Amino acid sequence: MHEGSLMEQCTSTSRVFNGRILKLRVDKVIFEDGLEATREVVEHPGASVIIPLLEDNSILLVQQYRYAVGRELLEIPAGTCQIGEQPELCAKRELQEETGYACESLEKVLECYVAPGYSTEKIHFYLARGLSRIGQNPDEDERITVVQISIPTALSKIRAGEICDAKTICAIFRVMDFVKDSTL
Amino acid sequence: MHEGSLMEQCTSTSRVFNGRILKLRVDKVIFEDGLEATREVVEHPGASVIIPLLEDNSILLVQQYRYAVGRELLEIPAGTCQIGEQPELCAKRELQEETGYACESLEKVLECYVAPGYSTEKIHFYLARGLSRIGQNPDEDERITVVQISIPTALSKIRAGEICDAKTICAIFRVMDFVKDSTL
Repeated sequence: MHEGSLMEQCTSTSRVFNGRILKLRVDKVIFEDGLEATREVVEHPGASVIIPLLEDNSILLVQQYRYAVGRELLEIPAGTCQIGEQPELCAKRELQEETGYACESLEKVLECYVAPGYSTEKIHFYLARGLSRIGQNPDEDERITVVQISIPTALSKIRAGEICDAKTICAIFRVMDFVKDSTL
Repeated sequence: MHEGSLMEQCTSTSRVFNGRILKLRVDKVIFEDGLEATREVVEHPGASVIIPLLEDNSILLVQQYRYAVGRELLEIPAGTCQIGEQPELCAKRELQEETGYACESLEKVLECYVAPGYSTEKIHFYLARGLSRIGQNPDEDERITVVQISIPTALSKIRAGEICDAKTICAIFRVMDFVKDSTL
């Protein structure tokens, strides 16, 4: 086995792209032992996931066409943080925009990286409870259908490959800690 | 609620970057109702995750420095598919390179997208059993420490935020279907 992972220091940066959501840079790095390598890095402002947990222990998912992967996906509500936006405010905003619900409480339950090999994106997961319907307000380029689903059905859909989005699988896994076993 | 998600058709593509691992393009798209939008798409060749499940129901994880997120992470073994490489062969190769183990059986147990809002990356998850140690062989720019860990400890580390990589959380969640409850 190796003696442990080593830090990499950046020796030069080439900025390749500065887009609406993504930025891309290519860095040259040097390891502590002198080896050099290249790192392609997607800069992403981060995102919030909201797990809307209803009184009957069902959750809300959203179905939408995902252009990058060329198909519809069934996902947990989520959205990209705006510049300078706190993840918790992003979560509240996206909950309403995507599902039409407001919540009484929002509890941080998880955070994780989605693709640490090349993307800076960190996702903040919030459990939303005390939900009340106030009306949907999606971005004009988002076409979203809200789906209410029980946790056992969601688990079946993961095993059947019908839910196949990493953050959604993480969210469903995490929410199980917050519902009584007797209802699963 | 909306009437359902709508397909988006590409009307023009601008290729921005063609790197060692990533490509990036910006597409203009049009919805069925005529609305136009822009999509920033990271093209990724896909990846394989290997869940090495030992006889005692522990699993192998790897600890490595992740430059894009600026810290060490404890992750399930995984690697990017080479051009034209089948995900199952990628899984076998990465299992040996990163952990130094070979396996008797490899079973596909999950596939998912990691960032379908902007990346084409799909991850293929394989459960590896019948493990035997043959020696590690990492890429020269990978500095990896192998960590053997029980599933209950892995679950604790997810809840404590010490495991914070989406694919690793998905893998630990999925492997629980394949171990006897009595051992958890």
